[in-house]
Amino acid sequence: MRIRHLALALGAVLLSIGAYAAVKSITADSSEFSDFTDQYRTWQQTAESKEVVDVLAEDPNLVVLWAGYGFAKDYNKARGHAYSITDIRNTLRTGAPTGPEDGPMPMACWSCKTPDVGRYIVEKGEKDYFTGKWARGGPEMHHVIGCGNCHDDDLGLQISTPFTDRAMETIGWKWEDATRSQKQSMICAQCHVEYYFTPGDKFVKFPWDRGTTVDQMEAYYDAMNFKDWTHGISKAPMLKTQHPGFETFLRGTHGRNDVSCSDCHMPKMKPAEGRRFTNHNIGNPFDNFEASCGRCHEQSKEDLEAVVANYKEMVTDAKLKAEGQLVRAHFEAKAAWDAGATEEEMKDALTAIRHAQWRWDFAIASHGVHMHNPTEALQVLASSLERSAEARVMLAQVLARHGVTTAVAIPDISTKEAAQIAVGLDAAKMKADKARFLETLAPEWDAAYKAKYGSD
Amino acid sequence: MRIRHLALALGAVLLSIGAYAAVKSITADSSEFSDFTDQYRTWQQTAESKEVVDVLAEDPNLVVLWAGYGFAKDYNKARGHAYSITDIRNTLRTGAPTGPEDGPMPMACWSCKTPDVGRYIVEKGEKDYFTGKWARGGPEMHHVIGCGNCHDDDLGLQISTPFTDRAMETIGWKWEDATRSQKQSMICAQCHVEYYFTPGDKFVKFPWDRGTTVDQMEAYYDAMNFKDWTHGISKAPMLKTQHPGFETFLRGTHGRNDVSCSDCHMPKMKPAEGRRFTNHNIGNPFDNFEASCGRCHEQSKEDLEAVVANYKEMVTDAKLKAEGQLVRAHFEAKAAWDAGATEEEMKDALTAIRHAQWRWDFAIASHGVHMHNPTEALQVLASSLERSAEARVMLAQVLARHGVTTAVAIPDISTKEAAQIAVGLDAAKMKADKARFLETLAPEWDAAYKAKYGSD
Repeated sequence: MRIRHLALALGAVLLSIGAYAAVKSITADSSEFSDFTDQYRTWQQTAESKEVVDVLAEDPNLVVLWAGYGFAKDYNKARGHAYSITDIRNTLRTGAPTGPEDGPMPMACWSCKTPDVGRYIVEKGEKDYFTGKWARGGPEMHHVIGCGNCHDDDLGLQISTPFTDRAMETIGWKWEDATRSQKQSMICAQCHVEYYFTPGDKFVKFPWDRGTTVDQMEAYYDAMNFKDWTHGISKAPMLKTQHPGFETFLRGTHGRNDVSCSDCHMPKMKPAEGRRFTNHNIGNPFDNFEASCGRCHEQSKEDLEAVVANYKEMVTDAKLKAEGQLVRAHFEAKAAWDAGATEEEMKDALTAIRHAQWRWDFAIASHGVHMHNPTEALQVLASSLERSAEARVMLAQVLARHGVTTAVAIPDISTKEAAQIAVGLDAAKMKADKARFLETLAPEWDAAYKAKYGSD
Repeated sequence: MRIRHLALALGAVLLSIGAYAAVKSITADSSEFSDFTDQYRTWQQTAESKEVVDVLAEDPNLVVLWAGYGFAKDYNKARGHAYSITDIRNTLRTGAPTGPEDGPMPMACWSCKTPDVGRYIVEKGEKDYFTGKWARGGPEMHHVIGCGNCHDDDLGLQISTPFTDRAMETIGWKWEDATRSQKQSMICAQCHVEYYFTPGDKFVKFPWDRGTTVDQMEAYYDAMNFKDWTHGISKAPMLKTQHPGFETFLRGTHGRNDVSCSDCHMPKMKPAEGRRFTNHNIGNPFDNFEASCGRCHEQSKEDLEAVVANYKEMVTDAKLKAEGQLVRAHFEAKAAWDAGATEEEMKDALTAIRHAQWRWDFAIASHGVHMHNPTEALQVLASSLERSAEARVMLAQVLARHGVTTAVAIPDISTKEAAQIAVGLDAAKMKADKARFLETLAPEWDAAYKAKYGSD
């Protein structure tokens, strides 16, 4: 606990103001805060959320939709914050770098995975942090998401990255003017938002300059001709939505009623003995029903679970319909290219695919959108289906002009394995490369961190 | 008030049981109940909802979607129950019959417009009632929706038509087992449901044999090869969804929480002096906010109005997208026929149009679906868009095989007038015919009723 008392000595008032300019230090090692026993113990419990759910295996459409992009290689359901370092090392998306200058991913990929990011930016600056490949950061990025991501050394709430602070200013959320409830949600919004990596310098930016709706962010990306990647099948200029949870939550029932993220996901607990404390085992509110949902809702847990299950069923139904149209659109675009279509002929259809997939992804990429804002998810999925319809009709006309007047065949994509073969991925090689990385470079990173910063 | 006392004398117990078999009489003239001053006075206030809103003028897409069917001629927003007879006589959909055997509509069209329907069925039987054209009923169908639609002569709740009773039994809602709250909603469900006219004998039936979801009713209609009409442009075998308000409401937040239709639309009022009474001016709950919404909700009227407005905006957005695709699909189908397509080539595309339009109409035909169940509306609209996409891609392929490889032109449908011309309607003639009917036959009906039943 040296940090806390040091902070107090230095002047907690300054640190607790919180706008990023005031951030003077960030403590990456959460064990420095272990005196806060209940908070620390429950934070450690995020390790209990350990199940690895292979989303690509559950829904092989995704392999096709993300063909040519990292997510087609590997995409697991998010699990507890305690696995943030393990999982970013393990995912095939970060590849198997052999040294600090080896790809495929940039430094920006660390940004939501560890409080070492905030610590490093305080020490070396943002430009230094965002320079180079992901592997360059390995020896510096060590601690799992923890206290320093959200708290200053005096345990006040604190935004720990300058890019979040800039984004919040963009939409008029000034930390110094924010209510306690808003601050609680802004803290989670450091990561649970839509963001992208700026072309060239690869900074993290939230695309909120025009606003935070699916239309506004699409217009933002379109105006700058931004693309995350070129689709491996259709060659469409694609956007990968991240997880606009903050954006969609705010417009949902809970957000509209000034309920914060932590009201539900980090409820106040009253132990049999001792003081009330905030549960830091961030997870499903139903796991603490009385302390979370039960504070406002009169219905039983079973009733509310049924409501949420019903919303999830609806969103899943529309999601799968949107995916079905998109999968066909990508293969129809490929067939059109193969039949001799020109860039000019394809342009509008590829833009429609881009928009349709952005909208589909926006609607479903966030954790729990069926709970946070099922109406917006469904509205956005409907708009995805509209754009897919436009894309497919245009493609049918292009195909016809090149002699193809029958339905385009879709290859076997019935399993993750089949779909990965269909999009040209070599899963065995990716896994072997990853295993080598985990056995060689990753342990070197741990050793380097320990040598530089002492034991963790 | 003679009826009420007569009923008491006859044995109110029997009458108040309510399952249709127990219905012995129905009083069509609501003035018989005028001693119930507050209820009667507020029922009369339904006449204050008098604005005629021309929905076809607001959204000319509808003229195209209903081409070849009565709704393309004329479709106004529903107004107060006090106008039920006026409006069914006035609408161009019922045409301008010149005598009891003249069309276009069957007797079934009266079924939700007057308590004389229930009275007549008690007197003459259901088979007699449903026989013949709408105009045959003119001299018997006189009173606006009123007391006898919902109440027995002792003011107990009562289902007044046997077809509602049969439908409720189909889905396991037995009147004798129903709670008070369920009965209140079942009463409204006599009319605010999806229904159709059975082929041949033209009885009213609710298509609930397989259940009440959009999928289940679609499967029901498909299995019996039912169609309401053949589309005037695409020649698709169409379904006209009526207003599945009960069905969608039950699955929405209020229905799930055992709130009845009347809890919100007929709230209990406490006058400055006198007893509490049920407000019979059925209308928008926001008009009686404290007595309706305010009984359960803590938010302000303005906050909840904003929530509902937001839902309406979302549903309207998806609705217009679904309409845009459907309009194109109908004209693309026409272009395919014009280019020489065969029935066999067109079959699947026309089925997709049928389904897409059924789903669009299901989602939006009910009053206030954006309030009752916005998620279901959006999910169903998404499924409409999926089916439209399928239809349009199939049609593009059919068109291509017949030499059409460019976008199909859509005629001017920017106003109701333009759209009606585009679908071949002669508005001036329809209106002139209607005026003649209103000046000649309609007054004869009133005179005949008065002569037979005395003054109203």
